[in-house]
Amino acid sequence: MTEYRTEHDSMGEMQVPAEALYGASTARAVENFPISGRPVPGAVIHAFGQLKAAAARANAELGNLDQAKADAIVAAAEAVARGEHDEHFPVDIFQTGSGTSTNMNSNEVIATLARQAGTDVHPNDDVNMGQSSNDTFPTAMRVAMVQGVAERLEPALKTLQKALEAKATEFAEVVKAGRTHLMDAVPVTLGQEFGGYARQIELGRERLAQAAQAVAELPLGGTAAGTGLNAHPEFAGKAIADLSRQVGVDMREAADHFEAQSTQDAVVHLSAATRLLAVSLTKICNDLRWMGSGPRAGLGELRLPELQPGSSIMPGKVNPVVPEATLMVCARVIGNDATIAFGGASGSFELNVMLPVMATDMLDSIDLLAGASRVLADRCVSGLEANTEQLAEYAGASTAIVTALNSAIGYEAASKVAKQSLAEKKTVRQVVIDRGHVENGDLTEEQLDQALDLLGMATPHGR
Amino acid sequence: MTEYRTEHDSMGEMQVPAEALYGASTARAVENFPISGRPVPGAVIHAFGQLKAAAARANAELGNLDQAKADAIVAAAEAVARGEHDEHFPVDIFQTGSGTSTNMNSNEVIATLARQAGTDVHPNDDVNMGQSSNDTFPTAMRVAMVQGVAERLEPALKTLQKALEAKATEFAEVVKAGRTHLMDAVPVTLGQEFGGYARQIELGRERLAQAAQAVAELPLGGTAAGTGLNAHPEFAGKAIADLSRQVGVDMREAADHFEAQSTQDAVVHLSAATRLLAVSLTKICNDLRWMGSGPRAGLGELRLPELQPGSSIMPGKVNPVVPEATLMVCARVIGNDATIAFGGASGSFELNVMLPVMATDMLDSIDLLAGASRVLADRCVSGLEANTEQLAEYAGASTAIVTALNSAIGYEAASKVAKQSLAEKKTVRQVVIDRGHVENGDLTEEQLDQALDLLGMATPHGR
Ligand SMILES: O=C(O)/C=C/C(=O)O
Ligand SMILES: O=C(O)/C=C/C(=O)O
Repeated sequence: MTEYRTEHDSMGEMQVPAEALYGASTARAVENFPISGRPVPGAVIHAFGQLKAAAARANAELGNLDQAKADAIVAAAEAVARGEHDEHFPVDIFQTGSGTSTNMNSNEVIATLARQAGTDVHPNDDVNMGQSSNDTFPTAMRVAMVQGVAERLEPALKTLQKALEAKATEFAEVVKAGRTHLMDAVPVTLGQEFGGYARQIELGRERLAQAAQAVAELPLGGTAAGTGLNAHPEFAGKAIADLSRQVGVDMREAADHFEAQSTQDAVVHLSAATRLLAVSLTKICNDLRWMGSGPRAGLGELRLPELQPGSSIMPGKVNPVVPEATLMVCARVIGNDATIAFGGASGSFELNVMLPVMATDMLDSIDLLAGASRVLADRCVSGLEANTEQLAEYAGASTAIVTALNSAIGYEAASKVAKQSLAEKKTVRQVVIDRGHVENGDLTEEQLDQALDLLGMATPHGR
Repeated sequence: MTEYRTEHDSMGEMQVPAEALYGASTARAVENFPISGRPVPGAVIHAFGQLKAAAARANAELGNLDQAKADAIVAAAEAVARGEHDEHFPVDIFQTGSGTSTNMNSNEVIATLARQAGTDVHPNDDVNMGQSSNDTFPTAMRVAMVQGVAERLEPALKTLQKALEAKATEFAEVVKAGRTHLMDAVPVTLGQEFGGYARQIELGRERLAQAAQAVAELPLGGTAAGTGLNAHPEFAGKAIADLSRQVGVDMREAADHFEAQSTQDAVVHLSAATRLLAVSLTKICNDLRWMGSGPRAGLGELRLPELQPGSSIMPGKVNPVVPEATLMVCARVIGNDATIAFGGASGSFELNVMLPVMATDMLDSIDLLAGASRVLADRCVSGLEANTEQLAEYAGASTAIVTALNSAIGYEAASKVAKQSLAEKKTVRQVVIDRGHVENGDLTEEQLDQALDLLGMATPHGR
């Protein structure tokens, strides 16, 4: 049986589990929001720990907070930041839209830890000094996002880009039928396609970095309504410098505190960047799935690493499971972005009140893309093998190679060559000769061979 | 230190944790998909238990499966259905798109349990008999959805509808300024508004029931490609009748197995119904927030129950936290629907390969809406109080009440009354008299009073 103790807040008494580090406000929130059963993500809680430590140091430096209290708050907050007290943060994601319950949860846990260590600390007056949920929650969530991008997503994308670049080099001379509208087009190299994929990811990383920069502009210092009432004018600058040191990423105080806390436009921006990555990965994974389709009744141009038996019923079948898993991540990121856009559009006056769901889904997108990118690089892209024979056969059989004859015999004659080649199942080269284009001097046989050189055609401006 | 044992599947040997009930296929999947760290939802696993039990009974009845094996499978599968082995289902949501790894996880856990109980059972040949992941995973996910709607979402919505209806009755005679374009309009009653909300939920329940009917059409029996290869022709009918008995909801075999397993249109339909509920709840919760805004500098027409201190910094502030939590749920449901639509649109030929993410997000929407509807009913709607004085004052002061004078004095004269009333800060009644409309016989003073009776104006066709 759970034992309880009595705690109070400004609304009166509450029963709190005896072992809980939190107090009455948190207990009220636990009771009020039995909605998803899922707590606010640990990354946000840990960022709250970093933030409360930074705030206490700044307040002490500015002479507003007793040094002993500050020390006790810092020690407790750092333990929260290290994830040592996650189980004392039970409040549901779907709670008050400002995240007040999570801010109070942090204030209460830190105050209890400080009190247990012998210093009398008040959750609102001391731990929350110079702060409001309205500037701390969006600050903590942005810190968690900046950290997630820097530590998890960006390195994973870099790994994926490198894996794609390595394949672009490896496949540089592997010719392949180009395809547009799913129909045979002029030849390309497989390396060119992989180079395109690598560049997609490179551009995605640049966009992500820009968006992460936007998110690194923090609302802290605005307090309740963006005006900064009750905070020392130097508080935010000092606390944010401290936070930047802790996180190892440069963050800065918002240029306009009304923009920074009445909106979450910066988070919508970051989500857009992750959605773009999801769109890029969707294109890449679908290409891989199609090129790997078969082994007998498909394109059969690529061999994907065989990771597990594909089917519970069809013996020996192997499936492109990693691209599939990645595609599901993309679907989820696109959904998260829809949530975040709806949330971002729902603000009123001085506060957006969709913060916890925006934080949760943004961090979800960051972590899912990181996980999928790494798995895609390590368990699929790195082990890809080209079926060069099949690729060359398709490339040579594609009648779109007549395009290279445009300048010698003209579009209309070339079109007749293509049609006759298909109808008579002859090579383009043979039909060009049959139709007398060598005989009549349109081009020599060497010029014909040169024009029909697939690798040359794929790389008309050199490699 | 974890101890391991050696297991094998068609690809060779794998090390499996000694205590794990699963085998080599599951271990491979755990290794292949370290993406989200979140396993497939318990509801899907439990439905797999129900399905495997139903399948074993059907196969035994049809003479294809030894009775002793069937009994052992049923006992094991029922334990899985009761949630007794959830920790042995570690495969990530983001896995192979058919959910093959989860189907094999079920087959392996059930086979191990049967073997531990003394009967030699093969995961593929016996537990998966007459089945494929391609018909079982979409069947299990639909069973979980049908069950979630019947047991959790529908009752919660009914509770909410009743709470709104009770308020519609309670507020039947409370007059209120109508508002269109956010601007003063002809009077309504607060009860009429709540009646509208209740009807929104009633219609939402009807749409949900229709969509749940569509989802209750199960792919089982199609096996790998929808043709039913390797399944007895009576297998699906028997197994689905058994499943319907277990779940307590009528489900039926798909009319067309190609539609049912090459697409997930039925799930997209169900998601659309939940999105619609999210849209309805968004409208309702925003109305509640605005009517409750204040207490001094807002509309102040409704008092929401006071559940917790609203602010960490502003003493005494109380916020509409339950509508906010509900609005965040709506944002998430709208995002889940975007994921599901993208997933539904991504099928090729005989199989949709976005099943696990569609299952997860659909169940998430069902459970979030259920949780939020219940909390909204119990912790907000039931305790709402009308500020009748404020409501009456706004209703009477709205110059849109001149609309009731159209037939007596005409639109143009009434419009002059409205403007003069605003400019001179006089009541509409006074201005009508001042402008001589009684004197000149347009209407008598009794007719004027009758026309300006707010409750009468709100209910011109009776109550
Ligand atoms: O797991 C199966 O039963 C089938 C998978 C597939 O179609 O490859
Ligand atoms: O929790 C706060 O600091 C503020 C919340 C509010 O604006 O009501």
